[in-house]
Amino acid sequence: MGSTAGSTPAGIAAAMDRALTLAARGPAHGPNPRVGCVLLAPDGTVIGEGWHRGAGTPHAEVAALHDAHTRGCDPRGATAVVTLEPCNHTGRTGPCAQALVDAGITDVVHAIDDPGARSGGGADHLRAHGIRVTSEVRAAAALELVHHWHHAVTAGRPWVTLKTATTLDGRVAASDGTSKWITGPEAREHAHSVRAQVDAIAVTTGTALADDPALTARTPDGGLAAHQPLRVVVGHRDLPPGARLRDDDAETLHLRTHDVHHVLAALHDREIRHLLVEGGPALATALLAADAVDELHAYIAPVILGDGRPAVAPFGVTTLAAAPRWHTTDTHRLGDDILVVARRTPATEA
Amino acid sequence: MGSTAGSTPAGIAAAMDRALTLAARGPAHGPNPRVGCVLLAPDGTVIGEGWHRGAGTPHAEVAALHDAHTRGCDPRGATAVVTLEPCNHTGRTGPCAQALVDAGITDVVHAIDDPGARSGGGADHLRAHGIRVTSEVRAAAALELVHHWHHAVTAGRPWVTLKTATTLDGRVAASDGTSKWITGPEAREHAHSVRAQVDAIAVTTGTALADDPALTARTPDGGLAAHQPLRVVVGHRDLPPGARLRDDDAETLHLRTHDVHHVLAALHDREIRHLLVEGGPALATALLAADAVDELHAYIAPVILGDGRPAVAPFGVTTLAAAPRWHTTDTHRLGDDILVVARRTPATEA
Repeated sequence: MGSTAGSTPAGIAAAMDRALTLAARGPAHGPNPRVGCVLLAPDGTVIGEGWHRGAGTPHAEVAALHDAHTRGCDPRGATAVVTLEPCNHTGRTGPCAQALVDAGITDVVHAIDDPGARSGGGADHLRAHGIRVTSEVRAAAALELVHHWHHAVTAGRPWVTLKTATTLDGRVAASDGTSKWITGPEAREHAHSVRAQVDAIAVTTGTALADDPALTARTPDGGLAAHQPLRVVVGHRDLPPGARLRDDDAETLHLRTHDVHHVLAALHDREIRHLLVEGGPALATALLAADAVDELHAYIAPVILGDGRPAVAPFGVTTLAAAPRWHTTDTHRLGDDILVVARRTPATEA
Repeated sequence: MGSTAGSTPAGIAAAMDRALTLAARGPAHGPNPRVGCVLLAPDGTVIGEGWHRGAGTPHAEVAALHDAHTRGCDPRGATAVVTLEPCNHTGRTGPCAQALVDAGITDVVHAIDDPGARSGGGADHLRAHGIRVTSEVRAAAALELVHHWHHAVTAGRPWVTLKTATTLDGRVAASDGTSKWITGPEAREHAHSVRAQVDAIAVTTGTALADDPALTARTPDGGLAAHQPLRVVVGHRDLPPGARLRDDDAETLHLRTHDVHHVLAALHDREIRHLLVEGGPALATALLAADAVDELHAYIAPVILGDGRPAVAPFGVTTLAAAPRWHTTDTHRLGDDILVVARRTPATEA
């Protein structure tokens, strides 16, 4: 970082922290990553800030350049500190790398590289135009901020969060089928706040027919949240005409397949980055069998049934050493219930 | 409390807090409750402190009177602030109520009444000797300190804590029987610290024969803890000569019955106040069927098996509304595992 014009390493790190804060203002859902950008004059003064507000709006770098112009500041000779490698791709907006070149930026510091096949390569483009490029500043925190998107772009399928709401003995319903309510109101409210942050929610036709769920994200007062995820129904059976999933509160996609790879591919094609799976057991089990569950949201109530429907069915694991393990990243107490959040891969150090 | 000689209500409350702190120095295990006592001179000065160190040692009141004499203080006219109603019973030590009368105490403030059929009645004895008695000061905290003992004396059976160590789907072993290790080293260490605080640990002969457990309480360095609970094996089959439960590290009691009421009665007769049940499923299930599980210690690992042995078998609950519920009192993160502590009855407000 010694070559970075004017700014000290500490100044760059502070600017990156600010860029991360700006990035977090963007929506957690949507096809694009959350990105923040801070422009530093050669003397280290902040002359522009920007962040990405969601697909179809200006990228963070362009927003920061616009902010500098609005302030009457000249970005020539400035350092752009940005949480993600500037894109090299013309989508709904132009390539950021070229925008930085055009603006006369001389240094770019980014946190993580862009893994996108089409959007990547921005750093090379910048270097080819004589701009000094530094990367890996606050990389873990930047990755954590975009991990659903990063995973989807890298793995070619959405990040899959499996939600379960069970008794301590792993039951989702008693033997007579009763299942309302295993977990309490705090857990349900939390689950709605999660829905409001994902791109899609999937259930099987079995669950749709049995429970007639709305699968909408609701605010604590019962209203519809500003963002509604895509509702995905997996299975061959038709939904009845009056099904709540047919209402206009959110879009519903019916995938007439039992192949979870087809489901994930279809959602990836729609740029779904984060899929929340809410049931039933057949879908959860198929995803576990495919080792395609990246995260668990296990809501657990202090109840024991001793009998009834389990959250998942056998999926081929017969010995303990072969069982997939997740790594607990977070726990929440929600009334009498507990939420355990765990990831298939070790948590990045944020 | 207006009649309490010399001391203000705030002074009494502070003395009771101190008495509770002293009481907590006593052992959590053992047949007797933890009790603390503070003696206040008419001007509110502390002239003596005592606590009960375990069965066969002086009760808190007698220890506090001894402390006052050691300090050269005269307890005549003093107020005894004690966490439990002074006993009226001659056991291995004499009755505390009479000791307070003999010492010339004029006021007694206690937190909770003694529910014991033999030991209760101390307040009446004190009043009959002209001593002013006040109760229900810091009652909830005092009850929490002795809740195993209080429950046992009141219900006529030990407080039963059921320990489970399961996957998120409630399994204690994979379908091939493998069960080591579902939970990690932090959870196992915590479980040993619990063993060191209970009076007895029970397993079935099935578990004893399958796992050959030692059921000893170990310190983190692997040594034996100072207190070893009674090891209880429930079932008709003999233990083999080389079974670890036959070693000299702790006492083992073999109860050749499958009737949990007989088990609890036998342990109550031995003044066992807190029984930890570690398995197997048959014993856990029988206790659940008898609604005799007062507390759960559910260690949960972020693993899903989809198959394998459940922690408990059906015990007659077929509909969710009929399922027993516990109330979460505490959760601990132990490495990747979670411990949920929950009680059958609402937690007292401590």
